Amino acid sequence: MPRNQQILLDNRPQVEATASNFKLVSTDTPALQEGQVLVRHHYLSLDPYMRGRMNEGKSYAAAQALGEVMIGGTVGEVVESRHAKFAVGDPVVGMGGWQEYSVVNGDEPVALRKVSTQHIPLQACLGAVGMPGVTGWYGLTKICEPKPGETVVISAASGSVGGVVGQLAKARGARAVGIAGGPDKCQYVVEELGFDACIDYKQHSDPKAFGKALKEVCPNGIDSYFENVGGWITDAVLLRTNAFARVAVCGMISRYDGASSPLESPALILVNRLKIQGFIVSEHMEIWPEALKELGNLLATGKLKARESVAQGLAAAPEAFLGLLKGKNFGKQLVKLV
Amino acid sequence: MPRNQQILLDNRPQVEATASNFKLVSTDTPALQEGQVLVRHHYLSLDPYMRGRMNEGKSYAAAQALGEVMIGGTVGEVVESRHAKFAVGDPVVGMGGWQEYSVVNGDEPVALRKVSTQHIPLQACLGAVGMPGVTGWYGLTKICEPKPGETVVISAASGSVGGVVGQLAKARGARAVGIAGGPDKCQYVVEELGFDACIDYKQHSDPKAFGKALKEVCPNGIDSYFENVGGWITDAVLLRTNAFARVAVCGMISRYDGASSPLESPALILVNRLKIQGFIVSEHMEIWPEALKELGNLLATGKLKARESVAQGLAAAPEAFLGLLKGKNFGKQLVKLV
Repeated sequence: MPRNQQILLDNRPQVEATASNFKLVSTDTPALQEGQVLVRHHYLSLDPYMRGRMNEGKSYAAAQALGEVMIGGTVGEVVESRHAKFAVGDPVVGMGGWQEYSVVNGDEPVALRKVSTQHIPLQACLGAVGMPGVTGWYGLTKICEPKPGETVVISAASGSVGGVVGQLAKARGARAVGIAGGPDKCQYVVEELGFDACIDYKQHSDPKAFGKALKEVCPNGIDSYFENVGGWITDAVLLRTNAFARVAVCGMISRYDGASSPLESPALILVNRLKIQGFIVSEHMEIWPEALKELGNLLATGKLKARESVAQGLAAAPEAFLGLLKGKNFGKQLVKLV
Repeated sequence: MPRNQQILLDNRPQVEATASNFKLVSTDTPALQEGQVLVRHHYLSLDPYMRGRMNEGKSYAAAQALGEVMIGGTVGEVVESRHAKFAVGDPVVGMGGWQEYSVVNGDEPVALRKVSTQHIPLQACLGAVGMPGVTGWYGLTKICEPKPGETVVISAASGSVGGVVGQLAKARGARAVGIAGGPDKCQYVVEELGFDACIDYKQHSDPKAFGKALKEVCPNGIDSYFENVGGWITDAVLLRTNAFARVAVCGMISRYDGASSPLESPALILVNRLKIQGFIVSEHMEIWPEALKELGNLLATGKLKARESVAQGLAAAPEAFLGLLKGKNFGKQLVKLV
């Protein structure tokens, strides 16, 4: 029975989330029952949606219960199995949470899924070939639906979702224009990920300057927008949409901490006949196989690039998560546990 | 050559539209050229979209030019024809504008279309079996997509579009909940049009009271919303949407006069995975035959009810139009010209 370090949600944020909302504890892993599997986590994924779960109010899903292990995606290996489908050593992805080990019922497909790591690194199953990648794939393919030559704008373009969206848009013959914070991220988005342009919202930090920059890099207007941030950036982008533009709403990070950000000009929805659609990729499991296949092939053949920010050790997770909410990470935020 | 009274857009509104923006003139109708048809208008349709055209800025379409006849839908009869497809006496619908006669190129299908008035009155082609009816049909059928038992909320429910939407929703097995201004309109919506309920926004005139009333008549939440008004009512409705609710954005009257109305909680788009889509029915001509067939059958068999507000004579059009923008009309606003 290995000892298991865990991070619990100890109390809910008042406004901003802080390190004091979390609590590190150590327990024994329980003995396995028939049908269960013990997984040792190699990497924990940190994602913005977790901030929503920390609130009591209505969000994507039920709030994270107090005193329980924080929810989170994990990759690891099976270290003990009492389920016929899993053997010791199997690489697996699941929702193991912020802890070093998890005991999982092997019959729950969302909770535990075997993955192939023949051509891709294990941690990619938490990024470009995992939930963030599939999120980008769904929003781009099912909502943005870019046609060749169209302009797709992507906020949080250097992140694990946004980076995939832009690269997939390029693969479909569209122009990809990113929005990111700071010259390093913008340079990465254009030079490494191959976007056509990237606007630094920190450099163009008021709506007017930002709108002007947007106009320059989108001379034919904006045909679709992959929304990762919310707030005034959304208003600025909508102002430059073409007729029949599509907006995939994947994240509104600037709202997670409770600050109210109204949409200034909803009349544009009518004027430009926009379609604005929110989605959560875990509600569309039917597209995962197709999406993972394309993303895995692209990554294995070097056509899809992804960057990681890796924090070391479970105890580093809260600070890494708070940094993620403030845009301090650069690429997919992981915590290495082994 | 009959004399033709016309109403021109003389100048643009500063903020609110006023009667002084219009100018009544009298001219001779020109002699017909080959391929043209002279139509005598029996009824002129007044619709909220006209307010958008009066502005210089970007709206649905190009602004109405100054000094020209105000745009508008008309029904009438052919009184002279130099086109093989049209004979004197043919009932026709078209975009004749705010005038008593129009000269039309018979080859333009949107400009002039023969209609059957065997089972329905001529002016219905401007209402339930015309642009407003097809607008309601499109938004409900293609965007709201109500399933039996779902709750559809419709603002401006006593209007020519909203009334059709609710009756079609009922015909599809959904619950229809209207929003209208004043007890007379609400009574009409429920008792004559057969909606399940109707909320008087003048009685519940702040967001909190309105939200409470909405909760009472939508105990299972809101699955789709046919948006005709904008402003705080939209926010209140979105707050009570169920997951995957659809919002058809047809009109945002409260914005036409230039007042800014932000959407307070766009994060709900993500939290409730909403789809919000704006549309203009003239851009979807492919669905008109199917929609007109259903609407015509329902009207002819008494299963679709519609009410008209009729102003008498062209000179009464501006005041009737300004009243429409303030919600003073009761049902489809027409001007009787013959």
